[in-house]
Amino acid sequence: MKIGFIGLGSMGSPMASRLLQAGHKVTVYNRTAERAQTLVAMGASRASQVSDACHGDVVITMLADDGALESLSFGDAGVIRSLGRGAIHVSCSTISVALSKKLTEAHAAKGQQFVSAPVFGRPQAAAEGKLFIAAAGLPDALDTCVPVFEALGQRTFRFGADPWRANLVKLAGNFLIASVIESLSEAMALAGKAGLEQREFLVFLTSTLFSAPVYETYGRLIAEKQFEPAGFTAPLALKDVRLAIAAGEGLHAPLPIASLVHDRLLRLLARGGDSLDWSAISKLAAEDAGLN
Amino acid sequence: MKIGFIGLGSMGSPMASRLLQAGHKVTVYNRTAERAQTLVAMGASRASQVSDACHGDVVITMLADDGALESLSFGDAGVIRSLGRGAIHVSCSTISVALSKKLTEAHAAKGQQFVSAPVFGRPQAAAEGKLFIAAAGLPDALDTCVPVFEALGQRTFRFGADPWRANLVKLAGNFLIASVIESLSEAMALAGKAGLEQREFLVFLTSTLFSAPVYETYGRLIAEKQFEPAGFTAPLALKDVRLAIAAGEGLHAPLPIASLVHDRLLRLLARGGDSLDWSAISKLAAEDAGLN
Amino acid sequence: MKIGFIGLGSMGSPMASRLLQAGHKVTVYNRTAERAQTLVAMGASRASQVSDACHGDVVITMLADDGALESLSFGDAGVIRSLGRGAIHVSCSTISVALSKKLTEAHAAKGQQFVSAPVFGRPQAAAEGKLFIAAAGLPDALDTCVPVFEALGQRTFRFGADPWRANLVKLAGNFLIASVIESLSEAMALAGKAGLEQREFLVFLTSTLFSAPVYETYGRLIAEKQFEPAGFTAPLALKDVRLAIAAGEGLHAPLPIASLVHDRLLRLLARGGDSLDWSAISKLAAEDAGLN
Amino acid sequence: MKIGFIGLGSMGSPMASRLLQAGHKVTVYNRTAERAQTLVAMGASRASQVSDACHGDVVITMLADDGALESLSFGDAGVIRSLGRGAIHVSCSTISVALSKKLTEAHAAKGQQFVSAPVFGRPQAAAEGKLFIAAAGLPDALDTCVPVFEALGQRTFRFGADPWRANLVKLAGNFLIASVIESLSEAMALAGKAGLEQREFLVFLTSTLFSAPVYETYGRLIAEKQFEPAGFTAPLALKDVRLAIAAGEGLHAPLPIASLVHDRLLRLLARGGDSLDWSAISKLAAEDAGLN
Repeated sequence: MKIGFIGLGSMGSPMASRLLQAGHKVTVYNRTAERAQTLVAMGASRASQVSDACHGDVVITMLADDGALESLSFGDAGVIRSLGRGAIHVSCSTISVALSKKLTEAHAAKGQQFVSAPVFGRPQAAAEGKLFIAAAGLPDALDTCVPVFEALGQRTFRFGADPWRANLVKLAGNFLIASVIESLSEAMALAGKAGLEQREFLVFLTSTLFSAPVYETYGRLIAEKQFEPAGFTAPLALKDVRLAIAAGEGLHAPLPIASLVHDRLLRLLARGGDSLDWSAISKLAAEDAGLN
Repeated sequence: MKIGFIGLGSMGSPMASRLLQAGHKVTVYNRTAERAQTLVAMGASRASQVSDACHGDVVITMLADDGALESLSFGDAGVIRSLGRGAIHVSCSTISVALSKKLTEAHAAKGQQFVSAPVFGRPQAAAEGKLFIAAAGLPDALDTCVPVFEALGQRTFRFGADPWRANLVKLAGNFLIASVIESLSEAMALAGKAGLEQREFLVFLTSTLFSAPVYETYGRLIAEKQFEPAGFTAPLALKDVRLAIAAGEGLHAPLPIASLVHDRLLRLLARGGDSLDWSAISKLAAEDAGLN
Repeated sequence: MKIGFIGLGSMGSPMASRLLQAGHKVTVYNRTAERAQTLVAMGASRASQVSDACHGDVVITMLADDGALESLSFGDAGVIRSLGRGAIHVSCSTISVALSKKLTEAHAAKGQQFVSAPVFGRPQAAAEGKLFIAAAGLPDALDTCVPVFEALGQRTFRFGADPWRANLVKLAGNFLIASVIESLSEAMALAGKAGLEQREFLVFLTSTLFSAPVYETYGRLIAEKQFEPAGFTAPLALKDVRLAIAAGEGLHAPLPIASLVHDRLLRLLARGGDSLDWSAISKLAAEDAGLN
Repeated sequence: MKIGFIGLGSMGSPMASRLLQAGHKVTVYNRTAERAQTLVAMGASRASQVSDACHGDVVITMLADDGALESLSFGDAGVIRSLGRGAIHVSCSTISVALSKKLTEAHAAKGQQFVSAPVFGRPQAAAEGKLFIAAAGLPDALDTCVPVFEALGQRTFRFGADPWRANLVKLAGNFLIASVIESLSEAMALAGKAGLEQREFLVFLTSTLFSAPVYETYGRLIAEKQFEPAGFTAPLALKDVRLAIAAGEGLHAPLPIASLVHDRLLRLLARGGDSLDWSAISKLAAEDAGLN
């Protein structure tokens, strides 16, 4: 397929690379152009502006937040103005339910399709095509995207025709990960204060009831206090938790643990944690117990 | 080994049965005697009073709460008075850190040993010898108990010489399960309010990042609203959460999510949920979102 | 003074009336024009569009939320386009810190002044000129507004030259009222569940340590379950709590009780409480205790 | 009246002094005897043991916690053994609902009366006879105690025949004060982070909607960071909040703000705040906002 790819960050780059490896014709765009070099060396075309990446069947966006996607989409030479009739905008970013609805309408008004396909997984998983994809959009559009999804992920889950529902699934998923981090942080602080070796306690947990990757990954980060380099920074995590709360607001669905994690992340940032991984909120539970 | 077994509830009975199957000589005691019949038919001796179960190398207690264990231990014909010098009391119940310390001292004063060995798993796992055991006590005592642990569980984790640390591990573990239930409840309420099919959302979660038994088990109960018969009742869960909070108090380690779950369980009981499984707190998140 | 007054709701109308009574020349504007009739009968001029109310020394806006103020201010015939050089826009609405900053800049760019002067008090207090005013803006502008403030309120407090700080004070004040409502709700639920007569308990509280108007006003509403007609509706309260949380986000200052109240209000709305007074969150604490 | 007074701490001493000034015949007892000297100089008799203070019409206890009152009441030469038939035990301490019920039964079994009369106010108010008293007990007993209450307090509120209800009122009152401290702490942290002068913000609050002694007293302590010497220490506050939560547990009435304050106090103690006033939890909200 002829694919445009916009946003070559730590996730976008390996994703675009996967598409190239799968034989797609990929035109890449990034605000800071040097990010594109490796991909160009692999065979990608370089777009010098957003519109140049919008001439294929599909354009994929993988951006940091609502603001970035909104300005790239609605600008004068933006995605909506540039995309052909019938073409598909696949948004893989973690964005708000509100923006997803707005994009759905704007694309529909131009005879284009909008698909939300946020992904689960870290950069390493992206490089291996092992992401999980939560996709929503009109069935035809989703069918068209199957080769894209197959190049990017190990499995795709469909959540119906309204793109925003896939965004909500992504936000709910990130909320659940945040809940794991916070609850593990509290339990580890308790164990540490009791004089238990945190690593042994963690081995116990992950060998028994909590044998899921998320407990292993974050438990290790917490036990080893290894918060840099960040896999997912605290400011981005705060953004996502805020979007989950906002989604709950829109639907009138309170999320008390999200509120708690929201306040933890804010506290972490107030104390200078901008560059830390979101698992660094574990420092706060430890501090509250008088550890460290 | 010659083993006494006190407390033949839904967990105790299959555990005693496992010991018999492993070839141990088991004397069983239960306050309501009829509970012992099946085990007697399998070869167990029946003790007509607590002291009769205390003449072996080891006596195991598996009781509902602090109150039950305390009265059976400290009474006139109780475990402490009846146990032989050098014999071991293995407590598998989920009890407070405070009672564990008190029992450790009381047994030591009589030249006896106290081992805490709370177990993780539901009755089915007990029947199959598939429990996980968190054990703590003096090394010699733990070594002596190895055949017992092997009959009961698939794996034993040692947490040092102070029995109370194993109790803390158990409380921390139950706290983490409660956190999973609460966070899943909130996420499922959000998904449900958004018009997503909760079962599909759950399949997505447990097929990706949350592929742990605890998410599968409780996610299913929540999605199917199947809270009776209870695997673990709300009042027992409240007791355990309270003990986790109390352990945190003793150590000066706050557990905000435990406080949140505590208030959820209290609310469930105030609304008549005494006989429900603890996963029924999910009804509250659903109710708060205007579902049901 | 020659004053424009925009927004004749339950607060704006009595405020404009006070200005007329004080002898000011007042031109009033409201989206739905009939609201202006009583004031016109009292001597006010009626503006048929926003710009007609912007020809005096001062234009006062008293609107429901950010959206209303933003569209009236930034539109083609809006306040910013219409106001004379050197004239003052006095915003009495409860708005976000972000919008306050944006308005400050926009007015400054046109050589106009922006003053934030949110008010504390219910409609009755507005009618009697007994409001409390939290004002911030450049000293000269504030000095010019003194006759306005004297007509509207019993006392004005100045919070420096940056208008947004007055907005923050207002949001913090509303947050504190919300905290009183929530904590009283919990205490009243506890007392009620204990079989105490809630009115007697309240008399005790307000006769001793809590002899403040806010405890008397809201305590009575809670005890009498009198949530309609609303003095301040739950949706507006949710908006304000959200703005307080947003202000905290911008400053990296977590507000855990605000998060709690936020979730209460959301739950109230999910259960159909749109038309109720914000003190109706007391129904939730009562419900959680199994009362009602 | 002939009155025994047990417990001469910072509250008990001025209370006993008030009784002497009112002309009562007072026999005082304190575990550490030197505390009694000033009162003996004023005309009190000194009891060398608890029982010696129990020969009058009324014995008043003013002790630190459940443990102290329980051991003094139920011991061999304790209040229950020593008090005459028909005599009254007036408990002014802040104790649990559970202990209050236990004492009610124990006294009734001996033909004695038990009255709960916890007091509100700081030592200064005690010295001036300006306490507020929440009293509960059988009407005859309360009537007999009127001269005692008149000497100690400025006003007495009766809460029926069951003594434990007065204890619950006291716990609910302290919970509400704790809620004021926490909410003020959050608001002051927000204001401080916004660059507002906290004292001015406080003057605004206490001059307008929050003109209650409790806001003035604690607001000043928070603004001036004056946490020593403590009027009421963090460990005692934690005890009281825990008792409020326990009362809620017994009645199935959740108290989310109490849970929040509980965790704040625990954190304060974990960081070495044992000797600080409970208003020192304000340091935590400030710290979370990155202040100090």
